[in-house]
Parts: sequence; C-alpha cells; structure tokens
Amino acid sequence: MATPTEVRTVTDVARQARAAGRRLAAVDTRTKDAALHAIADALQARAPEILEANRRDLDNGRESGLSSALMDRLALDDARLAKIADAVRDVIALRDPVGETIEGYRLPNGLDVARQRIPLGVVAVVYEARPNVTIDAAALAIKSGNAIVLRGSSSALHSNAVLAQVAAEAAESAGLPEHSIQIVGGGGREELAELATQDRYIDLIVPRGGEGLKAALKGVATVPVIFAAAGVGHVYVDASADLDQAVEIAQNSKVQRPSACNAAETLLVHRDAAAAFLPRIARRLADDQVELRADEAARPLVEGQGTPVVAATEQDWDTEHLALILGVRVVDDVHAAIDHIETHGSGHSDAIVARDAGAIRAFERGVGSAAVYVNASTRFTDGGEFGMGAEIGISTQKLHARGPIGLRELTTYRYLVRGDGHVRS
Amino acid sequence: MATPTEVRTVTDVARQARAAGRRLAAVDTRTKDAALHAIADALQARAPEILEANRRDLDNGRESGLSSALMDRLALDDARLAKIADAVRDVIALRDPVGETIEGYRLPNGLDVARQRIPLGVVAVVYEARPNVTIDAAALAIKSGNAIVLRGSSSALHSNAVLAQVAAEAAESAGLPEHSIQIVGGGGREELAELATQDRYIDLIVPRGGEGLKAALKGVATVPVIFAAAGVGHVYVDASADLDQAVEIAQNSKVQRPSACNAAETLLVHRDAAAAFLPRIARRLADDQVELRADEAARPLVEGQGTPVVAATEQDWDTEHLALILGVRVVDDVHAAIDHIETHGSGHSDAIVARDAGAIRAFERGVGSAAVYVNASTRFTDGGEFGMGAEIGISTQKLHARGPIGLRELTTYRYLVRGDGHVRS
Repeated sequence: MATPTEVRTVTDVARQARAAGRRLAAVDTRTKDAALHAIADALQARAPEILEANRRDLDNGRESGLSSALMDRLALDDARLAKIADAVRDVIALRDPVGETIEGYRLPNGLDVARQRIPLGVVAVVYEARPNVTIDAAALAIKSGNAIVLRGSSSALHSNAVLAQVAAEAAESAGLPEHSIQIVGGGGREELAELATQDRYIDLIVPRGGEGLKAALKGVATVPVIFAAAGVGHVYVDASADLDQAVEIAQNSKVQRPSACNAAETLLVHRDAAAAFLPRIARRLADDQVELRADEAARPLVEGQGTPVVAATEQDWDTEHLALILGVRVVDDVHAAIDHIETHGSGHSDAIVARDAGAIRAFERGVGSAAVYVNASTRFTDGGEFGMGAEIGISTQKLHARGPIGLRELTTYRYLVRGDGHVRS
Repeated sequence: MATPTEVRTVTDVARQARAAGRRLAAVDTRTKDAALHAIADALQARAPEILEANRRDLDNGRESGLSSALMDRLALDDARLAKIADAVRDVIALRDPVGETIEGYRLPNGLDVARQRIPLGVVAVVYEARPNVTIDAAALAIKSGNAIVLRGSSSALHSNAVLAQVAAEAAESAGLPEHSIQIVGGGGREELAELATQDRYIDLIVPRGGEGLKAALKGVATVPVIFAAAGVGHVYVDASADLDQAVEIAQNSKVQRPSACNAAETLLVHRDAAAAFLPRIARRLADDQVELRADEAARPLVEGQGTPVVAATEQDWDTEHLALILGVRVVDDVHAAIDHIETHGSGHSDAIVARDAGAIRAFERGVGSAAVYVNASTRFTDGGEFGMGAEIGISTQKLHARGPIGLRELTTYRYLVRGDGHVRS
C-alpha cells in the first residue's frame, strides 16, 4: 500500500505490480474467485474503518465546499458497501477469460497454432470521485489475471486508501501474490505523469473521469490509454419509422438516464416524418420538461407542445449535455443523418428507427460508432446489458477495445505453436 | 499526392485521408480487389518512370555515401517490381475481414447483438529504406478498407513518391475514393511529429524501422502506435528434450535468417542436458561460424568444436544481434529459463524443446511472449507462415494486436444491436 505517508515511488509501485502480474497470470480461476469472495466479505466485516475513512473525506469535502452532487457520489454507508460487495460477487460468476482459445488451426506443415487469451499484465485505473470504482476495478483486474494500480481523486483519498488496503489484504490472505492490488494518490499531476510513463511496467491505463483528466493523460502518457470520448449520441427517425416506436425510443434514449454517456443528445428526423412525428415527441417529452434545441425546420413543429423550445446553435450538435436537453434537427434523408452523425457524433451510441430495409442497411454501413442500434434505444450500451457482466468503462476509440470494457477487454492474446521438431526451410 | 513541391500540410493530407477512409469503409470487396489488380498492373506498365525515380535515389545515395547494404535495399529493377506486384496479387486472394461477425448472440430481452469487424479508418505507415513497403502497406490498407498515409525515408523519397502516385492513380481509376493512398515526405522530424499528432484524423501508426524511429514517435505521438520491440528470442532446451530435434531447432532459429526479428539470440540449456547437447550444437553451428557468447558453465562445453566462442557479458542477454552471434547459458531448470526470458526477452518469439509434459506446461504458462513455440523453430513467427497472408509488421506490444499485423489487425469492431422498439427499463 502506497499511502501518502510512505516513501515508495510510483515507479516502485509499478515495478512491484509487474512482478505481481507475472505471478497472477498463472493463478487458477478457483484461487482468483476465492480472493474475490474474501474481498466481498472483508468489505462488510471491516465496514467501520471504511466508513470512518469516508467520514474524513466527507468532512474535508464539506470544508472545501464540494458540491452536493459530488458529496453524494463520495458518501458511503452500509447499504452502499453491501452493493459494492455484491458487485464483486457478480464478477465471481463471470467466466474467466484467461486461457480461452480464440481460434486454433493446423498449418499445412503440421504445426498446431492456437491464439490464446492471456492477461495484459498490469492495468492502471485513474478515476474521480466515486470510491466504489476502487473495488469494481480491482475485482475486474483480479478476475482477468491482472495486477492493478489504482489512483483515485484527492477528494476520496482516505476512502480509496482504506478500500484498496482492505481488498489487498483480503486478496493476499486468499493466496494472491503480494502487490496484486495497489493504490497511489495524493501526489498531484506530477504523480499522474509518473504513472502514465511507466510503460516498462504498466500495460494499460483506463481513465474514468472528465475531460480534464483525459487531457492531462493525453499530453504525457507513454503507457497506452483507452480513452472514452464523450457520448454525443443520436436517434435518427426515418420516413419509414413506426412512429409509436420512434416516440418511445427517442424518449427512452434521452430521459431514462440523461447523465449517462449512452443517452441521446440529438434527435434527427427525416423531412417526410417531421410533421407527424415532431409534435408527438414534443408532447411525450413534456412530462420531463426536456428542453428542445431545435433547428428552424423543427421549431414550429415542436413549439407549443408543453416542453421548452429554444433555437439550436451549431455548438449544440457537438455538445454532450448530460441533462434534459435534446437537439432536434430535420434532415433530408438517411444519408444526411449519417453525415450529421459522422460530423458531430463521438462514435459512442447511435440509433435508427426505420422499417425500410434500404435505410437500415445504409445506416448500418454508414455509421461506424462503437454501438449502432436499429429500432432500439441507445441506452443499452452497457457491459451488463450486453451480457458481458461488469465493465470498467466504455471505449469509443478504435484500437484494442470498443464499447464496454469488461473482463475480455483486459486481456491480450499470444500465439501458442506446437510442433515436433519443426524447422523453417 | 503530397510531393515535396506541393503546399498541402500534413494536416490537410490527414483530413483528406479521413474523408477517403469513411467512403472506403463502404466499398465492397470486388471493387477493392479490382483496385489491387489495377495497382499490380500499373507497377509493371509504369516500370520505366518508377525505375527512373529509383535511379535518382540511388544516385543521391551514392553521393551521400549510403552503405552498400542500404543501397541494395533501396534498389529496384524489373524483377523486384514484378515481385512487388505479385505481393499485391497475393493480397487479392486473402479474405476481406470487413463485415465479419466476430460473435453474435441474442439477449434475454430479444435484442440481437452482433460484434462486427469494420475498418480502422486511416492508417499511417512510417518506414525506412525499402520502397516495396510503399506498395505492401497500401495493398493491405486498401483490402482492409482503410485509407493510408505513407511516410518513407528521405533516401527513398523519389521512389516512394512515384510508387505511391502510381498506386493512387490506379486505385482511383478502379473506383476507389480520391485520397485513399497518400504519401508525405521530405519534411524531417517536424513532419513526423505533425503526422503523429493527427489523432483527430489518423487511427493508427505502424512504424517499420529502427529504434531511432520508434523513440522519435514515442516522445510525441498522440495517435496510437503499434510498436514492434526488437526480437530477443530464446530457445530453451530442457533436460527431457530430444537432442536431435533440439540441435535442428536451435540451428534453424539462429541461422536460417539471422537478420529477422524472429531469429533466436540466446540458447538456454538445462544443466542436465548441457554436457550432451552443447558440444553437438557447437559443432552444428560451426558450418556457419556462429559466434557463441557463452556463460561460464557453457564455455568449456562449446569450446574447441570449430565455431568461435567468447565469454558472454550481461549485456549480451539483452541484445538483438541480428547477426551470427548466439548467447549460450546453462540454467537450473525450466523455471530459471522462464525467469531469464521474462527478464531479458522482448516478448517476441520463444521456444522450448522438451518431451516432458510438466516442463512444456510450465513454459506455456510462464512465458507470455507474442509467439510461444513447443518443439518448433522461432522462425515461424510470420504472417505468411501463420496462414494470415501478408503482414505489415510484427507487434510485441499487448494492446490491440500481438504477433503478425495482417488484414484483421487493421480492423476494429462495433456492436450492431437490432431490436423492434426496445427501450431500457
């Protein structure tokens, strides 16, 4: 444990994580699951000291004027601890990806080639505010055979340190290598830079936080980083759409959890569907008082339906509102919708509502987002919903992993080639 | 075409590549294959102007005192052009990875989820010396639906520029989008830095060159880079090895092409096999006068067998000799061999020669290299040998792609989710 009072450097932590990762790669699933059980149990058995540390963070937050939203995200209680422990137990139920043969074949010369999943080695997770990430990330790393280096925000310093310590001790007591779970923190941006340049020891950094955190990493990281772009998602309603479905899908994509990255930010409507559809969706969104930022063609059709309407600006099309605000734009056809999405979207989650096979095919081919929906809400982009179990984030970048980052995405592969004296001629 | 006389910036080139990549993603295989045919034909039809440009590079090389090895790598003639064209035709025969459904399943709520391969978008390849890379890389990019930005070395400036122009014109004439194949060059390290920071437009950089090139990229790149580490490969001969096989595998791994990254650099021998094996392998390597850099335990057993022997230094274990030099070390057992490989190896290609199932299992579990061999030569790590067709390089990093980078490794995936009015509750 690298609490702020110790003298180990980030490099020391990373080096020890590398050694732990090497040993973890060979640990069988039963032992890893036993460690996860031990972690879940310890979270509840050691609740008093965890909540005590959390109180110190809350006191500090109150003094430093943390917003009530951040205070709420920071706060732990017995119920939340039980939920965190349950999430760890959910990971036990997931299949261990390590050792999976992704493909296997025999070469003409008789060599047997197997492409096999192995752990990445060492994963670092850099996160803000919520202390539950400490445990969620550790559980996914352990199950996928990776050592983890955690770095939370300074506002949750004490909570995260105790949570990581509880998890590390439980894991070790269950037979995992020392230093499988470590935490750093309290060292500011220099520490982040030191962590992000440990490419000798750390294989991947997953940031969970705002744009400031990502920008700070982007400038300095030599360790590969999986960036999750903001989610500027779209629902396109084609002329051929079933309008009942379109109303429900658009409403759900916007309203069901507007703070989520898979919530829709812009509604695109085919010119020929606008007159029939737009007044209906405006009425449907009135219950939640969703502010519509509509273009000129849409405005007259959504005004006066009980929900606020303002004129859209160019900037609205590029903005992740994360709030009950929805851009509305009338487009000429599916191709114009695709162009809008490719120009303004973030490659996260985009949906078409249509009955016409041609329009659907064009959308499927033309939109390259991490998740493309046909007649379904954008809100399904989620490791749990996709049947992958827990996730550590959602990637919108193209390399390595796209969409939810679950256990599988925390692995790499190697070629195992078996022969019987084969040489190359 | 961005030849040095034009005024387009690297950013312009990258932006146009992005637009081309978007359109290329939707181009069907037949059209892409027609473009590859056109490129192969044009290379031969336009041989005179290509060879004329090559002569200018060779003249410049002669004046600037380029080594004869580099001059040879630089030189083109009709036979080499025919070989480059044949390599393009080989790519036509490969299966198009775009559109492959990697996995597909139905969720409990009835949503159909398909994980589908799509192109990365824009790939940049930065390479040194050999002009054939211009065409090899362009062919792989086109087939996998990616636009490509090429940047060769200044020593091959004219050859690369004409090759890229011939390929670009042939591709366009066959129906590919404008700017699918572009080249930059002549702008020094600032240009490389500009290219490496086009993360808005370029999805991946693949460097093919020496450590200097990689270091230059590492410092500045914001675009993801697939780095290929030096190949410090090992052959471990266990006490249980069939020594006839061990001799042939060790000889082949070192000698068959010593300049290749999958050639072995170090021979590790179990203490109990050393007396029987080491004199034999030394005699076998005498034909090629392989210099053995042996540790103390090995030295008396390899001396006097007709091949030069010197004392190994610590540095030898970490060095990619790319020459007829082989480190030789006696180890206590398979675990000591694994430790040596994990400490000194580069994660490229490592082999065990053994009959004992326990030793083989330990080696398979303990060595995490991109390619791990059992009773086979390390020389098989190659896209062609692995049945993947052509390759653009060999990755030793863990993210995205490991081992040969072929067509599949130039793609990403997206989730396509089809429903019928599904909303999240």
